[in-house]
Amino acid sequence: VKLTRLTGASIGKGNFRHFMEKELHENPAIIGDTLNRMIDPATRLPVLPDLAVDLAAIPRISLSACGSAYYAGLTARYWLEEIARIAVDADVASEFRYREPPLDPAGLGLVISQSGETADTMAALRYMKRQGCKVMSVVNVPESTMARESDLMLETIAGPEISVASTKAFTAQLAVLAGFTLALARARGARSDAEIAPLVAALMELPGKMAQLLADDTEIRALAEDIRDARDVLFFGRGSMMPIALEGALKLKELSYIHAEGYPAGEMKHGPIALIDPSVPVIAVLPSGPLFEKTASNLQEAAARGGRIILFSDKAGAARLAGIANRTIIITECDPFVAPILYAIPVQLLAYHVAVLKGTDVDQPRNLAKSVTVE
Amino acid sequence: VKLTRLTGASIGKGNFRHFMEKELHENPAIIGDTLNRMIDPATRLPVLPDLAVDLAAIPRISLSACGSAYYAGLTARYWLEEIARIAVDADVASEFRYREPPLDPAGLGLVISQSGETADTMAALRYMKRQGCKVMSVVNVPESTMARESDLMLETIAGPEISVASTKAFTAQLAVLAGFTLALARARGARSDAEIAPLVAALMELPGKMAQLLADDTEIRALAEDIRDARDVLFFGRGSMMPIALEGALKLKELSYIHAEGYPAGEMKHGPIALIDPSVPVIAVLPSGPLFEKTASNLQEAAARGGRIILFSDKAGAARLAGIANRTIIITECDPFVAPILYAIPVQLLAYHVAVLKGTDVDQPRNLAKSVTVE
Repeated sequence: VKLTRLTGASIGKGNFRHFMEKELHENPAIIGDTLNRMIDPATRLPVLPDLAVDLAAIPRISLSACGSAYYAGLTARYWLEEIARIAVDADVASEFRYREPPLDPAGLGLVISQSGETADTMAALRYMKRQGCKVMSVVNVPESTMARESDLMLETIAGPEISVASTKAFTAQLAVLAGFTLALARARGARSDAEIAPLVAALMELPGKMAQLLADDTEIRALAEDIRDARDVLFFGRGSMMPIALEGALKLKELSYIHAEGYPAGEMKHGPIALIDPSVPVIAVLPSGPLFEKTASNLQEAAARGGRIILFSDKAGAARLAGIANRTIIITECDPFVAPILYAIPVQLLAYHVAVLKGTDVDQPRNLAKSVTVE
Repeated sequence: VKLTRLTGASIGKGNFRHFMEKELHENPAIIGDTLNRMIDPATRLPVLPDLAVDLAAIPRISLSACGSAYYAGLTARYWLEEIARIAVDADVASEFRYREPPLDPAGLGLVISQSGETADTMAALRYMKRQGCKVMSVVNVPESTMARESDLMLETIAGPEISVASTKAFTAQLAVLAGFTLALARARGARSDAEIAPLVAALMELPGKMAQLLADDTEIRALAEDIRDARDVLFFGRGSMMPIALEGALKLKELSYIHAEGYPAGEMKHGPIALIDPSVPVIAVLPSGPLFEKTASNLQEAAARGGRIILFSDKAGAARLAGIANRTIIITECDPFVAPILYAIPVQLLAYHVAVLKGTDVDQPRNLAKSVTVE
């Protein structure tokens, strides 16, 4: 018998209508717990459990996962490359495993999975090991096959996730990968402690900002009314926000059966712009920051072609695009480093509320399984 | 004054209704010309122009492009990794340039662009050079900025492409990259001449197979009638066929304004399967080969959920899936190596015929420019 850390009460829905809503609301506590494991309370610097690998000596990282966990990995690629200055390859596990890419045996394999049992990701892990790489897993079930077979395991402290569509496990994956990025940046000497301190501070502010965001979802409910009758939706983002655009689209697809598609904003002009007309909402996840103006200019083009622009941004971003956005969801200001973690919540909430309005089976969307243990 | 190799006559539409149709029909001649430049007629082995780089010494390749050119690059990644056993990173140029990934200066940069002027791809090229990499470009305009600024240039011999949606330039990019793969495999000693000979033979058979395919598009026209009223379409593929699924979806999107989305087949169960119902055609590009059964099993699941399955496959594949496919487009048997080049044509033809039926502006789709020279 293996006891879980959670009491029976936390398995019920409590006062929430659906497990998905409850699990979204668990974010502040879970992200807090996850970060508390990764940040030393005295030094406020990132720490990792004793690892069997010399992090400073890794030449590169190969990352593989499926679905939302892959999007968490894609986000981490931006962080790891920019902050820890290490090269990262990322690929969906079902392609990676059959691509059989040549891997540097000194490189680190990185796999991500809520269940730790996803079949394609498991096969990717085993391929990495056969190539001689050490493999680190980020999993929510420390007793899982992936946890057992990997050389190092970083646990997301999300607790059991009942909703088929992943919410808190996704943000917890992001939080773990953000902490790992900072620890790796230190170990490699890519960043000084003085440079890392404000990034740690930005992470530690997340639970509070998440709670604030979850306390009032009136605007997101109103937006959901706008979206519910759309047949097609486009999500755009750039840089570390690009995978959040993919995640927003995936959740809307899974829960509401609206054909939403996520795209890097810079690719809009290479095809998807042809789809844009007033019937296709264009959603941008676009906090203020260095890439803001590039995406703002894409949105101006979309608006000029009749696109209905919906913006997730902070106050400054909202003010800058007030002339073209049909609706704006204002998100608390945050460091661009942590923006993907914070913005994941409102895009998931949007999918949730659209699904509720459409009356679909929120916690158990059609055709989907919680853990894909076959190929 | 710079004289082009082409006569005035070839700039007209000839007997075709649109430039796109004409350019699709130029495939056999163009692929023949392109391959004749890359294959030594005496030895029937791949040759490259004198390059300023020792190909055998390259540790890895970083590849970047936009739109269809990116999909050509994604296909090449499978070839280069499997056949030349060299590691390849691939990313859309608008993300690559701002990601600023750490690059090994001994590595080769690879950029692909029909015009040689695509703004984001140009920026990717310059970033690669600043990191100390040699850069190879695959372009259709040898006088272009990209051709001039790259260290080595492989020219696609596609002639001027008038249709905004790229067809012959895309297949010519694939042919050049396939030839480059074989030359690199030889230079690196990854494959013996005896192993390379059948792959060369498969390439040299392409013009004839393409001509055969283009001679009768009755089945594709009939399929276009089926698809024209669909609002949403999913394209699936695996391995080197996965980018052809992306290309098929992109062309349908660009030309007919149907919301088509391409996906690696293995990711179907991680989200898009929720969209599947009888109103959403599911198109698979699935030649016989080592990954056939994996994707066949995905299609069986899609069919079990009411999906209308449309198959692009050879006779053996069609027979295997006769029980679930609502419609099958039979493509001549070919070596799996060249299947992405051959299958590109029928998926592009499908988009063409749907657009003609819908009465959209085939050669100049709404909102799109031929060459995206701004970000």
